[in-house]
Amino acid sequence: MAQAPSAKLQSIDRMLNPRSVAVVGATERPQYGGRFLRSVLASQDKLRVYPINPRYQDVLGMKCYPRLTDLPETPDLVGVIVPAEAVMPVLEDCAKIKVPSAIVISAGFSERGDTAHQQQQAKLKEFAAQSGVRVCGPNCLGVANIRTGVWASSSAPYTDLKPGPIALVSHSGATAFGPLMTRAADMGVGYSHIISTGNEADLESSDFIDYLLDDPDVKVIACFIEGFKDGRKFIAAAKKALDVGKAIVLLKVGRSETGAKAAMSHTAALTGSDAVHDAVFKQYGVLRVDDYDDLIQASNLLAYAPAPSKVGVAVVSHSGGVSSLIADHLGLNGLSLPPLTRTAEEGINKILNGFGWASNPADITGYANRPELDAIMRLLEQEPEAGAVVVATAGRASQAQQVIKLRDESSKPIIFMTTGGEETEEGLAQLRQAHIPLFDSPRRMAGAMGGFFTYHRRRKLWRQAKAAVKSSKGVVAPDFKSGPHFLTEHASKTLLAHWGVPSTREIRASNADEAVNAAKTLGYPVALKLESEHILHKTEAGVVRLGLQNANQVKQAYAEIVAYGIKFAPNSKGSPVLVQEMVNGGVEVIVGLSQDSHFGPVLLVGLGGIFVEVFKDTAMRVCPITENDAREMLEEIRGAKLLKGFRGKPPADIDALIKVMLALSHLSQDLAARRPELDINPLVVLPKGQGVKAVDARINLHE
Amino acid sequence: MAQAPSAKLQSIDRMLNPRSVAVVGATERPQYGGRFLRSVLASQDKLRVYPINPRYQDVLGMKCYPRLTDLPETPDLVGVIVPAEAVMPVLEDCAKIKVPSAIVISAGFSERGDTAHQQQQAKLKEFAAQSGVRVCGPNCLGVANIRTGVWASSSAPYTDLKPGPIALVSHSGATAFGPLMTRAADMGVGYSHIISTGNEADLESSDFIDYLLDDPDVKVIACFIEGFKDGRKFIAAAKKALDVGKAIVLLKVGRSETGAKAAMSHTAALTGSDAVHDAVFKQYGVLRVDDYDDLIQASNLLAYAPAPSKVGVAVVSHSGGVSSLIADHLGLNGLSLPPLTRTAEEGINKILNGFGWASNPADITGYANRPELDAIMRLLEQEPEAGAVVVATAGRASQAQQVIKLRDESSKPIIFMTTGGEETEEGLAQLRQAHIPLFDSPRRMAGAMGGFFTYHRRRKLWRQAKAAVKSSKGVVAPDFKSGPHFLTEHASKTLLAHWGVPSTREIRASNADEAVNAAKTLGYPVALKLESEHILHKTEAGVVRLGLQNANQVKQAYAEIVAYGIKFAPNSKGSPVLVQEMVNGGVEVIVGLSQDSHFGPVLLVGLGGIFVEVFKDTAMRVCPITENDAREMLEEIRGAKLLKGFRGKPPADIDALIKVMLALSHLSQDLAARRPELDINPLVVLPKGQGVKAVDARINLHE
Repeated sequence: MAQAPSAKLQSIDRMLNPRSVAVVGATERPQYGGRFLRSVLASQDKLRVYPINPRYQDVLGMKCYPRLTDLPETPDLVGVIVPAEAVMPVLEDCAKIKVPSAIVISAGFSERGDTAHQQQQAKLKEFAAQSGVRVCGPNCLGVANIRTGVWASSSAPYTDLKPGPIALVSHSGATAFGPLMTRAADMGVGYSHIISTGNEADLESSDFIDYLLDDPDVKVIACFIEGFKDGRKFIAAAKKALDVGKAIVLLKVGRSETGAKAAMSHTAALTGSDAVHDAVFKQYGVLRVDDYDDLIQASNLLAYAPAPSKVGVAVVSHSGGVSSLIADHLGLNGLSLPPLTRTAEEGINKILNGFGWASNPADITGYANRPELDAIMRLLEQEPEAGAVVVATAGRASQAQQVIKLRDESSKPIIFMTTGGEETEEGLAQLRQAHIPLFDSPRRMAGAMGGFFTYHRRRKLWRQAKAAVKSSKGVVAPDFKSGPHFLTEHASKTLLAHWGVPSTREIRASNADEAVNAAKTLGYPVALKLESEHILHKTEAGVVRLGLQNANQVKQAYAEIVAYGIKFAPNSKGSPVLVQEMVNGGVEVIVGLSQDSHFGPVLLVGLGGIFVEVFKDTAMRVCPITENDAREMLEEIRGAKLLKGFRGKPPADIDALIKVMLALSHLSQDLAARRPELDINPLVVLPKGQGVKAVDARINLHE
Repeated sequence: MAQAPSAKLQSIDRMLNPRSVAVVGATERPQYGGRFLRSVLASQDKLRVYPINPRYQDVLGMKCYPRLTDLPETPDLVGVIVPAEAVMPVLEDCAKIKVPSAIVISAGFSERGDTAHQQQQAKLKEFAAQSGVRVCGPNCLGVANIRTGVWASSSAPYTDLKPGPIALVSHSGATAFGPLMTRAADMGVGYSHIISTGNEADLESSDFIDYLLDDPDVKVIACFIEGFKDGRKFIAAAKKALDVGKAIVLLKVGRSETGAKAAMSHTAALTGSDAVHDAVFKQYGVLRVDDYDDLIQASNLLAYAPAPSKVGVAVVSHSGGVSSLIADHLGLNGLSLPPLTRTAEEGINKILNGFGWASNPADITGYANRPELDAIMRLLEQEPEAGAVVVATAGRASQAQQVIKLRDESSKPIIFMTTGGEETEEGLAQLRQAHIPLFDSPRRMAGAMGGFFTYHRRRKLWRQAKAAVKSSKGVVAPDFKSGPHFLTEHASKTLLAHWGVPSTREIRASNADEAVNAAKTLGYPVALKLESEHILHKTEAGVVRLGLQNANQVKQAYAEIVAYGIKFAPNSKGSPVLVQEMVNGGVEVIVGLSQDSHFGPVLLVGLGGIFVEVFKDTAMRVCPITENDAREMLEEIRGAKLLKGFRGKPPADIDALIKVMLALSHLSQDLAARRPELDINPLVVLPKGQGVKAVDARINLHE
């Protein structure tokens, strides 16, 4: 049952399918305004165009209006190409006549980096939200609907580009209407839309993705992203994509600090932690790529190849050198080449008659140029463990015909990797025409294939998880002080217990005698720690004593801790001392929650100590997580081997660890309003069946 | 002073520059033999061609001879295209008439995988070595000299390909005369030679590299490698390349196990450890790439760009989105974009007048299409910290002209990264013509740039190191048993002492009382270990006791160890017990030597224990190493942070560790004939100034 589209989606719909467009700043000169006008006029048969410019009576032979308010009708879309300071008055006119959508090409807003320009943009943003005039830009190149041929952009309609099932959304107009457009056209890859979002004062890439996912003819969303304005909105879009079975393929700047810095100075947006972005992409099946051609070709693969039923890949080539390089890259992308069954092996060897190799990859020498290629490919296609077939050869017309026929008769993805040059242009054109996913680089092909299999695996898991997932336990936490504050170790553990996180046994003592009694109750050895909200780093302050064996040691430790505490933080005077059992054995793990500026609560897990500090060997996911997410996180950590029973040690209680991870995810949701940040460090994971214990913990709450 | 070329190099010279070629297996039919003949005939004006086939009187209107021995002269080169079993008789004829070089196109040798075919190839190899008929192949496609236009290959002359300073050497003929040829032609990149080496029964890729490095017009050797036959020979070639200032760029299969397996089954050669290959490439400045286009474009960059004087890169583009993606990839490849000086910043901002950004990367919007591009590029080129300039824009003819002019007047590398489509064909053709290194992928460009800077850094270090390096200490080791054997811990340490490796103080004891006396001499606590060459893994056998505090403990440990030893290995009866000081503090490191089947002795270093076992956090180099190699190895290990004084611990004695690494390198050379393998595990690296101590060690010697 389709929902009624929101006003925002309706505005986007008008922007991408306008019946009437006004161009404010229309001119005959070859500037942004002139180019926008000419682009719109190219589809004059499909819409009414109104040039607006108080300086002209007519433009390109058309009546030119002085102001929006002078128009005979309310246009669906207004293109704004005026100096930055004149943008707001135009938008105010838009609001007056209830224009649903505007594209602001004009630059001179927050991309300039200074406060004055940022304020200009903030005003624009606020106005859009209040007025209902939804704005694309500023500092963008506009949008193009390739299927209808309507280009509302300062980039000229590119007639070489064919319509197709891939929607392109890009921050950078010069990237979208540059390499991503011309190369797609060269490769015969078609787009449904090209949307450049610019500074995203109002409408964000996620808003357009949201809209495009409702379009039945859009199969894949390809994005060029410099940074998300609102990470949660992107997650919502990514979830929707999984729901509807469409893929998001994304080229995002920011893998290196150099790149993040450049993007930040260019977009004037916080780029956020790239590692958290990667966690989000993994979690929600978003395929991240590295380069323009990757983006186009991976999107094309996802748009046209059916979902694979198995994870193996069968490879055939005329050359052993070519097929071994392909096997190498497929392996690097986590894909396997299952050995041939006897049926295939004998069948292919019979054909090759000694001139080539029946194996996977199959090196079939000159048979690649013969009619027998067909029979060989079919034997590979019928291999039960082959989820896809890669054919790597020149791509002459005769080969193309055989490959297209196979694809038409098969339910498996058939991929072509060309090794040929210009002489194969005819065959390659046929392959493109038939929408066979076509690559010319083993690395790029294998990368796209890795992403393709990962996406389909994620989608399957997503459908399974959706039924099971419960993002919140609905735990009502006890009363806290309002306002930001830091919970001591014991308070933190007490809070964690509400979500079922077990901690060390421990007793608070107010004097040395109480401490000795507590130690007796707990049993020696014990640890002593000062409980003060004025001391964040206890070890640094010298207020921790471990492995105390008897009453004398406890008394001495008590006195020392209190003295050190007062010395370090005079306010800690009078704080109680925590007497705590010592936990033996097990593996030390760190589990934590942080608050990412873009994506909200992020769960982190890693082995304790130097593993985290030296090796950065941690895994992250955005909350809420599923149990499967938790298991995948543990698979990602290289040190997780230590949990599985390393060097003769018993395997650790991984299920209990996963329960804690899920508990923190629930906590992050139940206490969302307080934006909790916490560390359990260490959490000791005891041998299987013996559970876990939080040995130290600290929580920070925000208001 | 040039050396007289060896007979082998002379044979290769004849093969690549023949005045006369005989084609055995000549035919008019479009088979390998027919194609070879036609290829040679295409340069008939430059050489004499003799078709040979007992079945024909004439071929293509030329006199056809029945046998090589019937020829009127000894040809420089014989092409052999006959069934596998007929190859040896042809080579025997070659020897009779003293032919210097032969190319065996015929397949059906070791690539078939079975013993019979492998023996065929072994015979061929042996014959070549003894007869002086040097053989390229079998199972290759031949060679082409692009500069002279002589193609001695079963691949037809490809007239689109221009001559140039890059020599191409490839195992796979279908790769060399396929994608690597046609794409280079498409990109306007020229080769000097194309050489396909096939099964390498006799001549290996390294032999051709050796030859090509002597060619004054060859600047870069580009290789496609499935595996080296002789790793040491490749190292010798790589060293020669560093000496003469030419680069080797290499696409090698085997990064993943899937790829290694495919290459192995295809070439029937051991592919060896890919990690050791990577170590060799790092050590000797060989640039490894991932894909066909990488190989071509990185080679082109190295052939035409002058050595950079600084490591920074200045980037300019018409688009902020493009330049931030470029900055991202440059950063990922370890390159930095130095901030602009005030001169450049003010100069560029003055030109841009608010429409763009003077920064690095510089986003100059529409100014990229104006005459001002020239002045902007020059300001960037003059930046003192910029070692190279990357211009990223469409590449229209006007832009191309400005870039070419700048390159002509600059001593810095000027790189072009095109974002344009077909409309820029004219400008891009001009850039290609002028040999401006041209890329169309930010990732590929940045990868090539990273390799370019690394190569030039390595070459500088190489020249410095050459003067200083001393690969052997010339230590004469004491007498050993001949034949393969294993040295016990104490014997190993005694041997290591000859190369100056310090070990724990320790005394051998033959009974419990001697052990107690030894402990007293050393001072408590001590360790006890059984010294038996019948027990390789002491801990496993239960014959190690650590931290013994007094005489009673020593006595008890002694009795236990002896009993456990006899139980584990009855032959150990009567073996002495080692009484050893305990070493406190310091960082545990593992240092080892192994013998790689391809490259010989390999030095390995890593942090001890789980760092090696779980994280595989180790660095390797082939011996001999330089001091700089040792330092780089320590930089590579992530855990090396622990050596630098982590968490308030004192920095470790890294210089002493490096001395041990160099000592093992010397040992590997001094004892080369015994092919030593050894582990020092752990070597304790004490705080700075206190040295290191080998706590346990074992050495294996081969005959």
